[in-house]
Amino acid sequence: MPATCTDTEVMPQYSFTDDYSEGAHPLLMDALLRSNTTQQLTYGNDEYCAEAKRLIREKLQAGEEEVAIHFVPSGTSANLISITSCLRSYEAVLTVETGHIVSMEAGAIEATGHKTILVPGVRGKMTPENLENTVRQHKFFPHNAKPRLVYISNATELGTIYTKRELQALSAVCKSLNLLLFVDGARMGVALSAPANDLTPRDMVDLTDIFWIGGTKMGALLGEAIVVRNHLAEDFVFHLKQHGALLAKARIMGAQFAELFRENLYFDLATHANEMAQRISAHFEQLGYQLAAPTETNQVFIALPMGLITRLQERFRFYIWKPVDEETAIIRLVTSWATDSLEVDKFNAWVKQWSV
Amino acid sequence: MPATCTDTEVMPQYSFTDDYSEGAHPLLMDALLRSNTTQQLTYGNDEYCAEAKRLIREKLQAGEEEVAIHFVPSGTSANLISITSCLRSYEAVLTVETGHIVSMEAGAIEATGHKTILVPGVRGKMTPENLENTVRQHKFFPHNAKPRLVYISNATELGTIYTKRELQALSAVCKSLNLLLFVDGARMGVALSAPANDLTPRDMVDLTDIFWIGGTKMGALLGEAIVVRNHLAEDFVFHLKQHGALLAKARIMGAQFAELFRENLYFDLATHANEMAQRISAHFEQLGYQLAAPTETNQVFIALPMGLITRLQERFRFYIWKPVDEETAIIRLVTSWATDSLEVDKFNAWVKQWSV
Amino acid sequence: MPATCTDTEVMPQYSFTDDYSEGAHPLLMDALLRSNTTQQLTYGNDEYCAEAKRLIREKLQAGEEEVAIHFVPSGTSANLISITSCLRSYEAVLTVETGHIVSMEAGAIEATGHKTILVPGVRGKMTPENLENTVRQHKFFPHNAKPRLVYISNATELGTIYTKRELQALSAVCKSLNLLLFVDGARMGVALSAPANDLTPRDMVDLTDIFWIGGTKMGALLGEAIVVRNHLAEDFVFHLKQHGALLAKARIMGAQFAELFRENLYFDLATHANEMAQRISAHFEQLGYQLAAPTETNQVFIALPMGLITRLQERFRFYIWKPVDEETAIIRLVTSWATDSLEVDKFNAWVKQWSV
Amino acid sequence: MPATCTDTEVMPQYSFTDDYSEGAHPLLMDALLRSNTTQQLTYGNDEYCAEAKRLIREKLQAGEEEVAIHFVPSGTSANLISITSCLRSYEAVLTVETGHIVSMEAGAIEATGHKTILVPGVRGKMTPENLENTVRQHKFFPHNAKPRLVYISNATELGTIYTKRELQALSAVCKSLNLLLFVDGARMGVALSAPANDLTPRDMVDLTDIFWIGGTKMGALLGEAIVVRNHLAEDFVFHLKQHGALLAKARIMGAQFAELFRENLYFDLATHANEMAQRISAHFEQLGYQLAAPTETNQVFIALPMGLITRLQERFRFYIWKPVDEETAIIRLVTSWATDSLEVDKFNAWVKQWSV
Repeated sequence: MPATCTDTEVMPQYSFTDDYSEGAHPLLMDALLRSNTTQQLTYGNDEYCAEAKRLIREKLQAGEEEVAIHFVPSGTSANLISITSCLRSYEAVLTVETGHIVSMEAGAIEATGHKTILVPGVRGKMTPENLENTVRQHKFFPHNAKPRLVYISNATELGTIYTKRELQALSAVCKSLNLLLFVDGARMGVALSAPANDLTPRDMVDLTDIFWIGGTKMGALLGEAIVVRNHLAEDFVFHLKQHGALLAKARIMGAQFAELFRENLYFDLATHANEMAQRISAHFEQLGYQLAAPTETNQVFIALPMGLITRLQERFRFYIWKPVDEETAIIRLVTSWATDSLEVDKFNAWVKQWSV
Repeated sequence: MPATCTDTEVMPQYSFTDDYSEGAHPLLMDALLRSNTTQQLTYGNDEYCAEAKRLIREKLQAGEEEVAIHFVPSGTSANLISITSCLRSYEAVLTVETGHIVSMEAGAIEATGHKTILVPGVRGKMTPENLENTVRQHKFFPHNAKPRLVYISNATELGTIYTKRELQALSAVCKSLNLLLFVDGARMGVALSAPANDLTPRDMVDLTDIFWIGGTKMGALLGEAIVVRNHLAEDFVFHLKQHGALLAKARIMGAQFAELFRENLYFDLATHANEMAQRISAHFEQLGYQLAAPTETNQVFIALPMGLITRLQERFRFYIWKPVDEETAIIRLVTSWATDSLEVDKFNAWVKQWSV
Repeated sequence: MPATCTDTEVMPQYSFTDDYSEGAHPLLMDALLRSNTTQQLTYGNDEYCAEAKRLIREKLQAGEEEVAIHFVPSGTSANLISITSCLRSYEAVLTVETGHIVSMEAGAIEATGHKTILVPGVRGKMTPENLENTVRQHKFFPHNAKPRLVYISNATELGTIYTKRELQALSAVCKSLNLLLFVDGARMGVALSAPANDLTPRDMVDLTDIFWIGGTKMGALLGEAIVVRNHLAEDFVFHLKQHGALLAKARIMGAQFAELFRENLYFDLATHANEMAQRISAHFEQLGYQLAAPTETNQVFIALPMGLITRLQERFRFYIWKPVDEETAIIRLVTSWATDSLEVDKFNAWVKQWSV
Repeated sequence: MPATCTDTEVMPQYSFTDDYSEGAHPLLMDALLRSNTTQQLTYGNDEYCAEAKRLIREKLQAGEEEVAIHFVPSGTSANLISITSCLRSYEAVLTVETGHIVSMEAGAIEATGHKTILVPGVRGKMTPENLENTVRQHKFFPHNAKPRLVYISNATELGTIYTKRELQALSAVCKSLNLLLFVDGARMGVALSAPANDLTPRDMVDLTDIFWIGGTKMGALLGEAIVVRNHLAEDFVFHLKQHGALLAKARIMGAQFAELFRENLYFDLATHANEMAQRISAHFEQLGYQLAAPTETNQVFIALPMGLITRLQERFRFYIWKPVDEETAIIRLVTSWATDSLEVDKFNAWVKQWSV
């Protein structure tokens, strides 16, 4: 991925770069304003966090005796705390090589002392077969680090999703190999709202040991909710504190998550994001372009001629994902809860205009 | 400190427990609303962070060629990242035993691999003499860890402040001993706004190597600004990322800090906090009570009979800091930017009513 | 402690600096020679390690179902591996401030991520009262790191030993506070062989959770034997490997420990060390000098006039432990399994000659 | 690799399992005996370490102003200490996937906080092209960990060696990419003594930043010598101490290394190991078997029918490296300084007898 997006500058173009270029959904801002002046207990002991936890548990159909919920300020925090909280120092994490923790978090997992072991991925997903093969090769103990936790993302970094069947199969293999299953849910919303999805929120509780529900990429200013089975949750809050993730005013995450899960806002916003991606994707296909991957959630990967890419860049921002050859490259377009459908229409019109 | 404040419950009493029981100052909420819908670059490369950095630098009278500025979501993040960014793995931190990192951050510094060496404190402050003695005793290398960074807080955990003379002397000893000087500025605002203060913001740049300016305790929803001399700042952003402190929407910290430092809001709010503490403190003295420590900033430590404490607890929340004997205890009262002067008056009236 | 002993030079003087200035006891060298040419399994799976473990277990009267035994090359390895193997990342170690891990191991414990919490010591020992007080003050969770393991040394760094009564009381407090008890046994030999000792090897198993038996200071070229209760021993060997302490030719530690524990050699050598210290100590007292501490094991701490110290340094090496005033200092004399009784006699004669 | 060699049992067969199944070369045992009774300074400040360092520097033709030398007890210690001493916490290691640190050291590198990034290897070696490609893909900072140190082994884990040309090219690429080059020399002896080798000891100094010379696999009881360029060597001894690798009686490593490097013993022993491997290898080829890899040093990889493997196992121990198909597997035979040429002859005879 190029580093071309990291300079500070005015952005005249509309951005399809990521799903966190805007602030928070207006309803969340309202919630923050409403709750702003009350005095509250701190470090997550406030009423808003309590309400948010209750509402999330309702959506998950999971009681307090089953899971604990903790809010953290960032996805990297959610990943590193979830992982290190489950592992002894010599235990390792299994992940596909496109996993976010492999190359997008500056070695945060290793910084907590844990090795990551790569498993060959299939369209961004881990398969039971590849997992089993990797673990089987990795048994010359104690010379090998001990595999103990499987990291997957849903939706994956390539925008694909796990079907219920796939997650059940993976979960079963994990149990048989005595491995914990952990899901990075930075994009859990778009995954569970995808047209092809057949997983319920409750399935996440049943089929995994620990997972998190992303707020930052689904309309919150910040915040991710870690959901952890109680047998792994003892003393969890120490891990938060030790890694700087126990916010004094955790209430601001509580207030936002309560709003997202009071009704169906979280999934409504996700559905919008998915629809916007579909509209872009369908239009490309209609014009005869080849998708580099099926558009299952809010990410569109498409191979375009360099000439068209340059034209699009005049009005829009996005990543050039990977060069294909001298004349073609795959670009990535990300939509979100905030994506303006008018801008999508403009984008599609612009594509049409500059396509031969 | 008792753990009595950690249960979730309705708070009928007015709280003097800490300076982070409310949300954000209204002007900061306005700034968040104004900036909410614009698309921005992420991970701190946005316009709001840029503006905030510019404004903070103006207040510090320090150019880009002198210091770098980074925003992190919590005080623990600020401390652990600042410290680990400066040290090689075998280097240790010197701190007084009341230092926040010693017993209030769940071993976060040690979790990054660094030892903390205790120096006897004087009213929460480190003195050049005690520092020098400790370092001198600690030289049986390599059996001793190597002392390398001095951690102090201003204001301290006991509410006291460093005078210019004291900080100059400490800074000089650090230089002579080849030690870095780091200031935890969670309460920098009340320190530099204290009646007895003679330090300027620029002095912080001149006399230290790295320090941070607390937002959470001075009216922000969250956020602390680390100010680091350029020679120590190379690759600093890797440390942020690796510890989960590089927020995708860092803009929310930028927008708030810009507001705090555009005019004099940061120090105005601090002055209010200090005045409220003075009012409580002066009233106690007027009634003949003995302060356990002079009230230099926004914390009042006072020894009271248990009977009065119980009465006060009916209407107010605060920490019982330390028992003195069977019948007396020291309580801590903390005021803040948000403290309602009417509640202070009520508190003082209540004190008077129940004093014999 | 002065760093004056760290330069490379010829040593014309006889050394009472420490108990590891010589190589190995001749019987251990013989054992190494005898075992040298046989092919053996590696990484501790050899016959010599197996025999040594069997012999140590006999001496401890502890079966395989009770304790596991592992050999490591150094005392620092033994301490850091024992401690980190028992703890979760946010758990902390309690130790008196004279504990070896506090200031003599370059921050090795903290480098594994764990905080050390200081407990006031009494003549180098931890008392149940001071332990309990410290733990009680340390409960503002999760802001405080969680105390979980108590580190003590027997003999202590000051040469003192724990009586059975003292260790029982400490063990009982640990159990009641849910703390693990760990004993650094670098000088376990001289402790259990001391005239005042009433602890048996079996008591160490009964009263602690994990401890180690020092070889380096009791006649081995290198090697310490960690004895760990089985409930804490799962996967222990991973910790050895991960910290570089799983020697390919662990056989050399096995061969030496088998020799030390086949008959009573380990304790015979310790008794010799203690007797040599007694002889020095008694002679000083006879001449009217004041011991700085009772000589319970193989370390003599004595306050001497600087003039006499200078004379002694002409012929002998030892640490000047601590200045008392301008004219007096406390020196430390350490005897060992290798101490030549003729040199002790010469030392005593030299003391007498130069005493007024 | 199968775990079939890890149980404790009598070994009736002759072992070609590894190069550390015996004790030490007799000349090294003599050196230990000769030096055993003298009193010496400790922690590496003794005369034997001083002599060994002088002799190694002579062989390297490198002065004290160029390189520092430190002895550590194990290969894992040598790797983890060398790597962590060079890196800041967010910096990562590049290695081919067959590198010893990847899967044979229980995650020891990650336990020091550093990520390992895999580079596709070519017969166990890193190529400049693959290194450059990997680094180029790894630049989305600070989301990617920062590549900083290249780890290679010579001889490699597959028994291959680097030519001077290859190492020069790799060294040049490292310099151009601002990467440090580190060589794991557990089998440096057989590499530099290989028939195809054209590297001199001095080349190791010129072309790398840090490397180590293996003692354990070349006739020592234990011990590896880390050679580090002075600009990276400051405070190196702290790293030794902090990781439990600073032995009190470091003299035993000094005495052995002095013996290995006084004349040409180190390379003579290596030459013997290589010759024994050649004899086995040549005989297989003569009989028409297919080597799985050319035998460049002391490791023979050969594909054999399962029937023959079973027969060989009656008299000899070795690893079954990898199954090829139902009827064939690749085995690994390792020779060493201690390999008895009569046993090699017996092995060859046995192979011949049971080959159809």
